[in-house]
Amino acid sequence: MDMKGIEGVGGMDGMMKVAMMNKPGRFDFEQKPIPKLKPDCVLVKLEYVGICGSDMHLFEHGYIGENYVKEPMVLGHEPGGIVAEVGSNVSSLKVGDRVAVEPGVPCWHCEFCKSGKYNLCRNVYFYASLPVVEGCFAEYIAHPANLCYKLPDNVSTMEGALMEPLAVGMHAVMQSGIRVGSNAVVIGAGCIGIVTMLSLKSMGIRNITVVDLVKSRLDRALELGAANIVDASETDAVKKILELTCDGAEFVFETAGSEVSIFQTAKMVKRGGTITLVGYTKDGTAKMNVNWIIDNEVTVKTVFRYRNIYPLVIEAVSGGIIPLRKIASDIYDFNDIQTAMENAINNKDTVMKCVVRISPDAK
Amino acid sequence: MDMKGIEGVGGMDGMMKVAMMNKPGRFDFEQKPIPKLKPDCVLVKLEYVGICGSDMHLFEHGYIGENYVKEPMVLGHEPGGIVAEVGSNVSSLKVGDRVAVEPGVPCWHCEFCKSGKYNLCRNVYFYASLPVVEGCFAEYIAHPANLCYKLPDNVSTMEGALMEPLAVGMHAVMQSGIRVGSNAVVIGAGCIGIVTMLSLKSMGIRNITVVDLVKSRLDRALELGAANIVDASETDAVKKILELTCDGAEFVFETAGSEVSIFQTAKMVKRGGTITLVGYTKDGTAKMNVNWIIDNEVTVKTVFRYRNIYPLVIEAVSGGIIPLRKIASDIYDFNDIQTAMENAINNKDTVMKCVVRISPDAK
Amino acid sequence: MDMKGIEGVGGMDGMMKVAMMNKPGRFDFEQKPIPKLKPDCVLVKLEYVGICGSDMHLFEHGYIGENYVKEPMVLGHEPGGIVAEVGSNVSSLKVGDRVAVEPGVPCWHCEFCKSGKYNLCRNVYFYASLPVVEGCFAEYIAHPANLCYKLPDNVSTMEGALMEPLAVGMHAVMQSGIRVGSNAVVIGAGCIGIVTMLSLKSMGIRNITVVDLVKSRLDRALELGAANIVDASETDAVKKILELTCDGAEFVFETAGSEVSIFQTAKMVKRGGTITLVGYTKDGTAKMNVNWIIDNEVTVKTVFRYRNIYPLVIEAVSGGIIPLRKIASDIYDFNDIQTAMENAINNKDTVMKCVVRISPDAK
Amino acid sequence: MDMKGIEGVGGMDGMMKVAMMNKPGRFDFEQKPIPKLKPDCVLVKLEYVGICGSDMHLFEHGYIGENYVKEPMVLGHEPGGIVAEVGSNVSSLKVGDRVAVEPGVPCWHCEFCKSGKYNLCRNVYFYASLPVVEGCFAEYIAHPANLCYKLPDNVSTMEGALMEPLAVGMHAVMQSGIRVGSNAVVIGAGCIGIVTMLSLKSMGIRNITVVDLVKSRLDRALELGAANIVDASETDAVKKILELTCDGAEFVFETAGSEVSIFQTAKMVKRGGTITLVGYTKDGTAKMNVNWIIDNEVTVKTVFRYRNIYPLVIEAVSGGIIPLRKIASDIYDFNDIQTAMENAINNKDTVMKCVVRISPDAK
Repeated sequence: MDMKGIEGVGGMDGMMKVAMMNKPGRFDFEQKPIPKLKPDCVLVKLEYVGICGSDMHLFEHGYIGENYVKEPMVLGHEPGGIVAEVGSNVSSLKVGDRVAVEPGVPCWHCEFCKSGKYNLCRNVYFYASLPVVEGCFAEYIAHPANLCYKLPDNVSTMEGALMEPLAVGMHAVMQSGIRVGSNAVVIGAGCIGIVTMLSLKSMGIRNITVVDLVKSRLDRALELGAANIVDASETDAVKKILELTCDGAEFVFETAGSEVSIFQTAKMVKRGGTITLVGYTKDGTAKMNVNWIIDNEVTVKTVFRYRNIYPLVIEAVSGGIIPLRKIASDIYDFNDIQTAMENAINNKDTVMKCVVRISPDAK
Repeated sequence: MDMKGIEGVGGMDGMMKVAMMNKPGRFDFEQKPIPKLKPDCVLVKLEYVGICGSDMHLFEHGYIGENYVKEPMVLGHEPGGIVAEVGSNVSSLKVGDRVAVEPGVPCWHCEFCKSGKYNLCRNVYFYASLPVVEGCFAEYIAHPANLCYKLPDNVSTMEGALMEPLAVGMHAVMQSGIRVGSNAVVIGAGCIGIVTMLSLKSMGIRNITVVDLVKSRLDRALELGAANIVDASETDAVKKILELTCDGAEFVFETAGSEVSIFQTAKMVKRGGTITLVGYTKDGTAKMNVNWIIDNEVTVKTVFRYRNIYPLVIEAVSGGIIPLRKIASDIYDFNDIQTAMENAINNKDTVMKCVVRISPDAK
Repeated sequence: MDMKGIEGVGGMDGMMKVAMMNKPGRFDFEQKPIPKLKPDCVLVKLEYVGICGSDMHLFEHGYIGENYVKEPMVLGHEPGGIVAEVGSNVSSLKVGDRVAVEPGVPCWHCEFCKSGKYNLCRNVYFYASLPVVEGCFAEYIAHPANLCYKLPDNVSTMEGALMEPLAVGMHAVMQSGIRVGSNAVVIGAGCIGIVTMLSLKSMGIRNITVVDLVKSRLDRALELGAANIVDASETDAVKKILELTCDGAEFVFETAGSEVSIFQTAKMVKRGGTITLVGYTKDGTAKMNVNWIIDNEVTVKTVFRYRNIYPLVIEAVSGGIIPLRKIASDIYDFNDIQTAMENAINNKDTVMKCVVRISPDAK
Repeated sequence: MDMKGIEGVGGMDGMMKVAMMNKPGRFDFEQKPIPKLKPDCVLVKLEYVGICGSDMHLFEHGYIGENYVKEPMVLGHEPGGIVAEVGSNVSSLKVGDRVAVEPGVPCWHCEFCKSGKYNLCRNVYFYASLPVVEGCFAEYIAHPANLCYKLPDNVSTMEGALMEPLAVGMHAVMQSGIRVGSNAVVIGAGCIGIVTMLSLKSMGIRNITVVDLVKSRLDRALELGAANIVDASETDAVKKILELTCDGAEFVFETAGSEVSIFQTAKMVKRGGTITLVGYTKDGTAKMNVNWIIDNEVTVKTVFRYRNIYPLVIEAVSGGIIPLRKIASDIYDFNDIQTAMENAINNKDTVMKCVVRISPDAK
């Protein structure tokens, strides 16, 4: 299989509209050739693409981690759409199928891929990442068929796009090893905190406490099913969680990337429990309460993207146990993508997830 | 701690009513001393006790496995009630607490107990088992406090009694290792099949197919949330399951103890999947499709009672994700226990779970 | 990547010698074109190829399972050799590297491959399997580079060939979940029984009892490090194992494919223990002591080939903890392959593993 | 069972010699009554007791963590000896049995004990811990029989004493989940680093790199089987480990409690690998390279004492795969315990493990 269908040499004629970030902070619409198909790929006419925190960071700051934007770049890596053409080797999908697109294409041949941990593949091709891989704010993408997942009739292409952040939350939950009957704390009520909470709820976890510093975000968590909320701007979060749980939470998920929170996780978690780190800190490091963690034989798990999760989250959304649609707080037409992005960046307390409707026909 | 509080030497004065099986097939009410308390035990005034298949087998046939009833015996091992007195070492419970009682008391000191697999303890003291251990069809039992679980306000003592069969279903589900997003087949729509299904649903498993030979039992499964039912008396169950799942079910639970079903599980299960055996066969053995199981690297798990499950199922019932009350299809007063038992034995197609209301005051 | 390099269109000129099974029971040497290379493959000049039980069965009976040999076929799937040419995309290997070749080439794109269980891939291309896939009794094979593992200096290409059966034994051990400090029973002292025992020993398992019906095979097991042997032709194996272990073995590996043994595993294994089924039975089925297995919460694991095991077994052999060389009981030159095969078939009690020296230059 | 046999009310008459730490830094020999037996306990005549780092800390500084020595105290919690008397309920041991004594006695009844994680029991009674629990620098201890493990004939009581630190190393290895074929780094070549290395070796791990700052300690590691050593006082340990492993070590064990090392573990460990924290840091905290850990989906495990490990390590030592005797670098008679302790404290670079021969008769 050729994993880089997007640079392919066959397929549909014509041009497509792309939102090009010619420099950080500014999108320009351009016409580019529709990508041509390789035999194992399908061409997807995009309907919705979500805006992720990393898109926002690249747009606002022009870099991420130690990688800088040096040339024009297409952002976006949360795509949902409709199959418009199928490669010659593809039998799993047909034109008209609505699909969620898993945006990272691993090599499938290295030791990580062979052992099922393809998210750790060092040769991955991930949309809208640096050094420049093109993203999905475009009318079409070509993508390997085995990373395009057909959506059931009761799941929309917008939900298809939202599967990407949901996959992060669900992978975090899977990494933690939590099972029904346990309690959990989720630190951070941003998009990833919320999808983590929704993933927990889908597995029968009822006793979930969400911690954040912003009341509006906490209210949102409550609406979406948190059992308890803790406003850490006015309460000692550790103390409050010990009150709520007697003995600490069996599972703590840190999605805020806050150094303060990361330090606090040690005393929030129950003896023998598990902390799952999801959020990155600003400077990359954090002080941890190491002796406490050792003395209580706490496990720390971490999460890099996701693997083997799309079929599972699609099944969960289709089965009605994750109200995924509700995380799309703001929806903009493709023509308004500049506004969409600025809104997402400037209103982090109210925007849970901003989605761009790429196709005017999308329902 | 003394695990055999029921034979103890302290506690409340007076006598209590007991349903004595003086010979198989017949209960007589007798007066016996209320058990006296050991320091680590509590005295539980029973409100409800469920009738289990093993009670029915002992009542009807006078033996189970290779053990015969040779003397008068008290049946019953699914008790729920109210704490009436606490031993001198007990601080975890107080008089008036409503509790579910885990009926097997292990030694806590052998290698199985030390490693957390206390259900495998060879020195266990389990109510209403042979050679004669007294059971719970009585007004009071004395029991170690650490095996009496306080019920939340929204969980009744009848549900407390029903935690016992539910624990079997949930332990089966835990043993299987299933996670949200998977599909499952449950063979057998009797009480254990149904609690297995309910346990699966509580963990977010939606795609559950229940197989049985009796239409009324299948209808019940459908009402309680099966996605599909298969009447194996009129359909080729393997063929039907392959149709419903494409590729076989990732997890198959055999609760019927049918030799035919056990053989069929190999071809019902998906490659790499897991069969969990719960039901005993009549003659103790079953032919298995061994090469198929090997060729598809199928795992077979089994279930003996349960361990570390009560807190979990109580949390799940309290959290509203297991409608446990609904499995109590038939409720009788203690005075009618003879009728209750005969009804349970004679109407297996309609009686899902028969419960005896021990205390007239029980709500 | 194109997984079928053997049918490729580039590469080294010239012809090679192949042992063609024109009909069951007879090899004829033929000249065939040296396979041409696809970009992700390497051409391997074979030095040694082992004879497996499935080769023997196909040679003797002309079928395996439900698949019949209908056309000329090349047998052999345990190859070790030297890289003679590398495909244009290959950077992990170079000409002259000595390699072990993992003989099954999965699709890498299905759900099994994506989740790391590539041995369960339904689209696998496995040497010398039916319907006809060519095998390795030939001077050259072309093979995907990521399934050719470079051998350390202290590991020979003959050991490279022997990695294949060893991989089966090690995968069985990995599937079982055994850890240092446990005891084990291995039923069957044929090649797979022995490599299972050697794999166990490499992980620190000392207390291994090997069961077989043939004294010479048991002696061999003893020489290679079994702690105990049981001759089931003259002793009650279950009784003997209970004597040796007090309480049953924590792990039982059935490699003999004997229906009697499979039934016995239930009573050989300790409560809570694990039976791993490796050997196929003659008619595909076996009666199992199901109630006993359930009552003791025994797990049954199974093994289909192996996955992600080659690097591990190469490391173990190189590290000196598996004396792999010793399993090669009989070595024949390529010219004598007919004799080699007949010897292997006719002397199963003495031939542990017969290896064919394909290249006269091989050390 | 009564877990506090040491305070019991029956048993052998007479007095015994005890090394009392009447104040930090000074042992005085005193006569105390031999502890009397409870029914589930045995009286152990001690032969050897090891000196642990926590004993040294209490002796030198008079506190540990936040707990201060306020009254006379007996130190020592690594005991091996001979059964001198058995309680009335004990059938597993008899007078004259040589035993290793697991020094922590949990309650067996809390949720941790019930689920097999008895090392996390909050009600544990652990020798020589604060607030004052008496330790083992005495001629006799009474101890629950189920925590006294009979030693095979080829294991000495000195090795019995040394099982305690070994249990820590083996538990660390078990917690990490490492399997044969993996490579490992052990940071710290003190006693715990060395027993971790020996535990790894017993499981077939060959490729072990030991890091320390002291040459003599590294030489010792090399003698006992490290594949590589890194002197971090003169080399960049991270760089060196990346050279030695290409890609980082799959498993890193931090036993030094060094803040620098803990920070470095992130870049020493391979993508997807596991760091196991064993050593406490001086001020209780450490900065960690959190983003790197997340980006590489690294797991952090921790270790608090051990559970269910004694039978396993005894089997390993008896089986000859752990040369436990070799860690006893310094052996002193009971009468010289003051010197022994001072030596241990003052010569940390050369003393791997100091053992006190309590009984003059001990072999």
